Amino acid sequence: MADLSAELAQRANTINLNAGPSPLPDAALLTAASSLLSYPDTPGMGVAEISHRSPAFDQIMDNANNDLRTLLDIPQNYKILWMQGGGLTQFAATVLNLLAWYRIKHQLKPEDEVDALYAVTGSWSAKAAEEGARIGVNATKVVDGKKWGGGKFNGIPQAEEWAIPQHEENARKPAFVYFCDNETVDGVEFGGVGAENAFPFHKFDPEIPVVADMSSNFLSRPVDVSKYGIIYAGAQKNLGPAGVTLVIVREDLIVDLDEAVPFGGARVPSMLSYKNMASSNSMFNTPPTFTIYVCSLVLRTLLTSPPMPLEPSAPALSPLSAFADTKSSLVYAELDNPSGFYVGTANKDARSRMNVTFRLKGGEALEKKFVKEASERGIKGVNGHRSVGGIRASIYNAVTLEQVKALVAFMREFRAKEESA
Amino acid sequence: MADLSAELAQRANTINLNAGPSPLPDAALLTAASSLLSYPDTPGMGVAEISHRSPAFDQIMDNANNDLRTLLDIPQNYKILWMQGGGLTQFAATVLNLLAWYRIKHQLKPEDEVDALYAVTGSWSAKAAEEGARIGVNATKVVDGKKWGGGKFNGIPQAEEWAIPQHEENARKPAFVYFCDNETVDGVEFGGVGAENAFPFHKFDPEIPVVADMSSNFLSRPVDVSKYGIIYAGAQKNLGPAGVTLVIVREDLIVDLDEAVPFGGARVPSMLSYKNMASSNSMFNTPPTFTIYVCSLVLRTLLTSPPMPLEPSAPALSPLSAFADTKSSLVYAELDNPSGFYVGTANKDARSRMNVTFRLKGGEALEKKFVKEASERGIKGVNGHRSVGGIRASIYNAVTLEQVKALVAFMREFRAKEESA
Repeated sequence: MADLSAELAQRANTINLNAGPSPLPDAALLTAASSLLSYPDTPGMGVAEISHRSPAFDQIMDNANNDLRTLLDIPQNYKILWMQGGGLTQFAATVLNLLAWYRIKHQLKPEDEVDALYAVTGSWSAKAAEEGARIGVNATKVVDGKKWGGGKFNGIPQAEEWAIPQHEENARKPAFVYFCDNETVDGVEFGGVGAENAFPFHKFDPEIPVVADMSSNFLSRPVDVSKYGIIYAGAQKNLGPAGVTLVIVREDLIVDLDEAVPFGGARVPSMLSYKNMASSNSMFNTPPTFTIYVCSLVLRTLLTSPPMPLEPSAPALSPLSAFADTKSSLVYAELDNPSGFYVGTANKDARSRMNVTFRLKGGEALEKKFVKEASERGIKGVNGHRSVGGIRASIYNAVTLEQVKALVAFMREFRAKEESA
Repeated sequence: MADLSAELAQRANTINLNAGPSPLPDAALLTAASSLLSYPDTPGMGVAEISHRSPAFDQIMDNANNDLRTLLDIPQNYKILWMQGGGLTQFAATVLNLLAWYRIKHQLKPEDEVDALYAVTGSWSAKAAEEGARIGVNATKVVDGKKWGGGKFNGIPQAEEWAIPQHEENARKPAFVYFCDNETVDGVEFGGVGAENAFPFHKFDPEIPVVADMSSNFLSRPVDVSKYGIIYAGAQKNLGPAGVTLVIVREDLIVDLDEAVPFGGARVPSMLSYKNMASSNSMFNTPPTFTIYVCSLVLRTLLTSPPMPLEPSAPALSPLSAFADTKSSLVYAELDNPSGFYVGTANKDARSRMNVTFRLKGGEALEKKFVKEASERGIKGVNGHRSVGGIRASIYNAVTLEQVKALVAFMREFRAKEESA
């Protein structure tokens, strides 16, 4: 019972391609397992059993923040917040916080409405736009990927095709522009593998804060944080267990929400206030301490043991970027086999490096067979999202190159077997 | 590294009396540690690495719900929700959800104000009343324990002294009445050890839903759930790691929040809607899966291995109740030693069975010495809350009788040594 070697052996025989929650590095999990029982800084007490106000937990939080700041090269005028409730909570929290900032800034009247821009390129950004409209902005879609894709989210139109409203000289600008950097369900990513279509910052007035949901490609490549107003990411893909959400927010956007009430701001639960979170170092109440601890282990691993060599003076996340390109390219190469046995669902210029989505030309029954035989080979979690079906191989940071090669080998064998049947 | 026997040995030498996050049972942690690497139902994948939409996680959630329902004998017309954001989020969420229910029920006009009653008996209920007033109710304090206690929360006035507003025959009643069952900071509990002062349900109109924060005494005694509208509890005391909050809510109080908007209801983030949580079996988005899993292990332990014998036909939680009484009585007996060396801060008729708070007659320097020498003996986490100082021994379910006896033995020795010095 107190020996984990059997569990480690089972891990070695399994390729976990779940879309989220997702695999974590063995080393981080081993350390977390032993720290659950006794944390080295508090011998005899597990890391989930100590006060969040203790020096030991302060150190965990500091390490996590410092490592994250180093990895993403986060400027000093950005705060790092650890919040609860996932991306879906941020769909509302970003809007409520930015609305307050905007209403104060423009000294609005309560009846004044506020515009916001949404780039809808997949299932998650569609939900975000919906929640934004519910919560209180006039949400304009500058891109509607589903309409553009003829009913399916399968790509990102070129920036020239975006319907970006032009505002009059003296008119108020929209409060923010939102996009989702990687669409987990649809396998569509800004700046996907081999593609140049990063988010078109240049098309927007630089005074309009850009909000990005990076839940499913967080820490997979360098990011110029200074271009963003807010970046957020649920932990459960590249960072840690489910239950904590990273929010990186530019300081000048953080306001006291109650000060916005006379200008039409909403009464917002204290726990959703970025100001409360920032001023308490994310300990406005008890944070999810164990979850944050596991994140801190993963961050340290990314920093100290990158999966590919870090070139001198290159950004700290460039090895992760090369790693994601290498791995996803292997799978896409198989999808592009001229036989057409596999059919990628995302356009080539928007292919996600994290979630490779595809169908089998042979139809749903063959897809089921694929999932079943993959599972028998120890390749788990490759069924597509329940809303779209098909196959999805999620190859986050913790998936190794060897595991991706094994996936591709299986795909080739399966194709060969079926084609000759 | 893969062997946890050293960690287990360290646990055996440590008495963890942290107020929260708090100790968890060894057996649950051992199972959790091994499941972090490989969960038996999904060999090769850890329990934090599988989809929340998988059969394996569905089973975890079902087990947790079923065991909780059995332990608390929760009636079928109550829903169990697993939410994020702690008690502080519920300070707002209960208000927002009940306000919607109330506004729809009474078909209010947007300008109509709504009253709510708060029994303020400690630091947490004071915060809850403050948040309620911020969020949108006229919060009337039926009890103000601080005023009653002459500036300190040290007890609960008898129900006859409560200032419960009487409403006219046809007037609208308050939307709800709130109380905090156990005040973690102040060591004050309704129905504390040896006391009869349970919450005075009989003093309130039975149509007014009662909301109880049971964060720090959840699962420590049987509860007649049918008397409550809403019960909630952060997990990090008696139930599991920080990061999940249990909400038990009567079905008829659950409404579509957006339907309340025409009647003056607020636009509420989707994630705070009890209806969304109830209709999705708490999977409106990715829940904190590992945290819920650990809770499921603790619940199973409470059900199958109660710390004292379960008498036939007694409520499932009665062994926990006897256990808490026995343990806390031992500490209070030492506080009541006629020497007056230790001074309990809570009145005898409101003494918490979970958080025993006291001062040393000798003053703060001696308290520091007490904390230091306790720590040297392996007794950890006994410093009082930073807002009140003093000493606090939190003796939740996972603290054993032997550990409490060791604490009391230390207290006696410390007293004897200091008195003879």
